[in-house]
Amino acid sequence: MPHIELGNDAPGIVGLMKYRPDTAKVLNELAEILLRGENTLSRGERELIAAYVSDLNRCRFCHNSHAAFAAAQLEGGLDIVLDTCADLDTAPVSAKMKALLRIAGAVQRIGTDVTDEHVAAAREAGATDLEIHDTVLIAAAFCMYNRYVDGLATFAPEDRDAYKEMAELIVDRGYGASLAEQH
Amino acid sequence: MPHIELGNDAPGIVGLMKYRPDTAKVLNELAEILLRGENTLSRGERELIAAYVSDLNRCRFCHNSHAAFAAAQLEGGLDIVLDTCADLDTAPVSAKMKALLRIAGAVQRIGTDVTDEHVAAAREAGATDLEIHDTVLIAAAFCMYNRYVDGLATFAPEDRDAYKEMAELIVDRGYGASLAEQH
Repeated sequence: MPHIELGNDAPGIVGLMKYRPDTAKVLNELAEILLRGENTLSRGERELIAAYVSDLNRCRFCHNSHAAFAAAQLEGGLDIVLDTCADLDTAPVSAKMKALLRIAGAVQRIGTDVTDEHVAAAREAGATDLEIHDTVLIAAAFCMYNRYVDGLATFAPEDRDAYKEMAELIVDRGYGASLAEQH
Repeated sequence: MPHIELGNDAPGIVGLMKYRPDTAKVLNELAEILLRGENTLSRGERELIAAYVSDLNRCRFCHNSHAAFAAAQLEGGLDIVLDTCADLDTAPVSAKMKALLRIAGAVQRIGTDVTDEHVAAAREAGATDLEIHDTVLIAAAFCMYNRYVDGLATFAPEDRDAYKEMAELIVDRGYGASLAEQH
């Protein structure tokens, strides 16, 4: 049960966003730019970073949501996401994605854990400065979203299928759609 | 030296915001709503939460900035901020602020560390549901800002006086002003 009375029974961040629409608008805009805006990283790759960081933060709602959003936009589907979260070293992703995910993992612990070596490895694997920047900001942003969702003890459906419907909405219409739908 | 070529030598998040104006706009809007928007918590109290969490995350740029912004808007000035960061138990702040800062400290570790007892203590000290919500979201947001600033190894002036000028701008004109100023 959530720590505060939300006045709705929507799960995870959706319930929080209905409770506080002013902050919801900005939080959705940030997700839209970072995860779906014009970028040399594909939408699936960026959702994979979000799902990976959310798994490291043990945030079930965000991990399951973004795993579903990544799966819907990556060749290889959910297996790629689960294999990456289980063991990054053997994950079936490109060397560039591995290097970026290692940066994301460092950011999840604490910003100063990102080393010159992490960044050099990403560049060597072909990552641009903007891709490195966006990886750091996506990872940092999920350290916020995850804490927001769990810090208020919101409800997270257990079943991965419950996240598939949300995935269709996000993939088709973007962040903000799930909120607009319900107003 | 920052991990990526920013094309400017502005310190901390200001340099990052000049590098990526699209995300800067949204990050500033979020700070404006959370730290300066209409609220039953004063601007000084909310900046104190930001400074406290940034100190726990050992982010010098964000801690020094928000300590200066809090000091400029709290009776008692910088001493209140430094005493609170040094020892919350003996800090010269209200019982309500102590309870909210304990929630913020739990969020900084990981969302699930916020307990029913933390929330009950805040309510008992007079905190509203919205104040508890905003405390969680401010603490979570600074887990993002801090990681963004340090994850890209931005420059942080050592001297606290360097942050005073920024404080005047923020207090007078709000978040986004320092960016607008330089364009």
